[in-house]
Amino acid sequence: MNHRSIRKFKNIPLTTMQIEAIVRAAQMASSSRFMQAYSIIGLTDPALKHELSEITKTPYMEENGHLFIFCADLQRLTLMADEQEKQEMRIMLGSSALYPIAVTDTALAAQNAVLAAESLGLGAVIMGSVTQDIRWLDRMLSLPDYVVPLFGVAVGVPDQQPEIKPRLPLEAVYFENCYPSERDLQAHIQAYDDDMRHYYQNRSGNNRNACWSRSHIELLKLPIPLDDMTEYLHGKGLNLT
Amino acid sequence: MNHRSIRKFKNIPLTTMQIEAIVRAAQMASSSRFMQAYSIIGLTDPALKHELSEITKTPYMEENGHLFIFCADLQRLTLMADEQEKQEMRIMLGSSALYPIAVTDTALAAQNAVLAAESLGLGAVIMGSVTQDIRWLDRMLSLPDYVVPLFGVAVGVPDQQPEIKPRLPLEAVYFENCYPSERDLQAHIQAYDDDMRHYYQNRSGNNRNACWSRSHIELLKLPIPLDDMTEYLHGKGLNLT
Repeated sequence: MNHRSIRKFKNIPLTTMQIEAIVRAAQMASSSRFMQAYSIIGLTDPALKHELSEITKTPYMEENGHLFIFCADLQRLTLMADEQEKQEMRIMLGSSALYPIAVTDTALAAQNAVLAAESLGLGAVIMGSVTQDIRWLDRMLSLPDYVVPLFGVAVGVPDQQPEIKPRLPLEAVYFENCYPSERDLQAHIQAYDDDMRHYYQNRSGNNRNACWSRSHIELLKLPIPLDDMTEYLHGKGLNLT
Repeated sequence: MNHRSIRKFKNIPLTTMQIEAIVRAAQMASSSRFMQAYSIIGLTDPALKHELSEITKTPYMEENGHLFIFCADLQRLTLMADEQEKQEMRIMLGSSALYPIAVTDTALAAQNAVLAAESLGLGAVIMGSVTQDIRWLDRMLSLPDYVVPLFGVAVGVPDQQPEIKPRLPLEAVYFENCYPSERDLQAHIQAYDDDMRHYYQNRSGNNRNACWSRSHIELLKLPIPLDDMTEYLHGKGLNLT
């Protein structure tokens, strides 16, 4: 309940014991049919971290105690198959039903990693922006088919203590037996938008005049070309049909 | 580190306080751009739970302390937009880059829910099988466009204490800077397959002669028709391009 994303870390690298504790905790998450369909890559090469930080314009991508890249990984399941079996597996592996399952496995593991880090007195932030130039990252990490980077998790000793961000009211997120009407939801969201405007205006840093709905509407109205991701996934043998 | 999925619960319903504590913990997970792109539906209607249990042939879908259905939800972001803005948002909402982000948000929240349940002395299991007849569930829950059920989480007082299932060796999941060669990975997977064969033969229930790789290869070779999911997602306005 005390979670806040940490974006400024002290210059103290994680120990091998801390890294292993975090990875082992990640591995203890459930996974669909026990597929364990993810891999975690620790980025320790300073040049690589620096370049990723430049590409994403995110200083804490470089300045942290450790940087984990979480990848959906359906390749590992194929490694003990013979060539004919690998061919036969391509249809299922390429289905748009299976890719979100691998994404789910990866995120379940990542949340365990974040909580393990926090339980060790560290802070963490999850960064989707690592995929901003996904082909570059794919090349740098030498990712094979069926392996896709999803997000980074930077971990370290916190050098800031941001306020906890107010979440949507429970009534806008949790329902019994049936999804509510638009009108019911709108009332809760309106109230939340007012709260969030107050929060953004008054928090200790990065103040702005914004509210939750409006900023997302503006963001999602933008005609950002996203077919690059589709093509990339197809090239990895995923999300095809 | 002590996690095991619980599939047999005592007949003790969760209290409202427990349910709210679990949902509020779920909400504290990070979400991409703070989209909070998920909804959680508590299934309390006995007839609905019974039918879902029949469809999925899963008794603990019905026999548990509480059943949460976790849904990716990109609809909530549109509710304060006017009609023209909603039209403009359709491209981004329908992109195959955005859907996995909503899936990630949902899974991060769900893992927090599982850990919150465990920290309250309860047990939990995540069940992808709730989507076995996804159109039926969609209808039952009256899900609008952009809202998709991903998995269920059954929570309750454990009535079993299964062994902890051995995970892949850390060396097969965590790498530094670069994805390993097939040969390196195969050696670790081979060792794990041997461990898992031993585990499956010797665990206290549901014994079988199986290993990790072989059972997944057999599963993923099957030509199960999965286009139903693709069509369903397209019908919800998601994963289009």
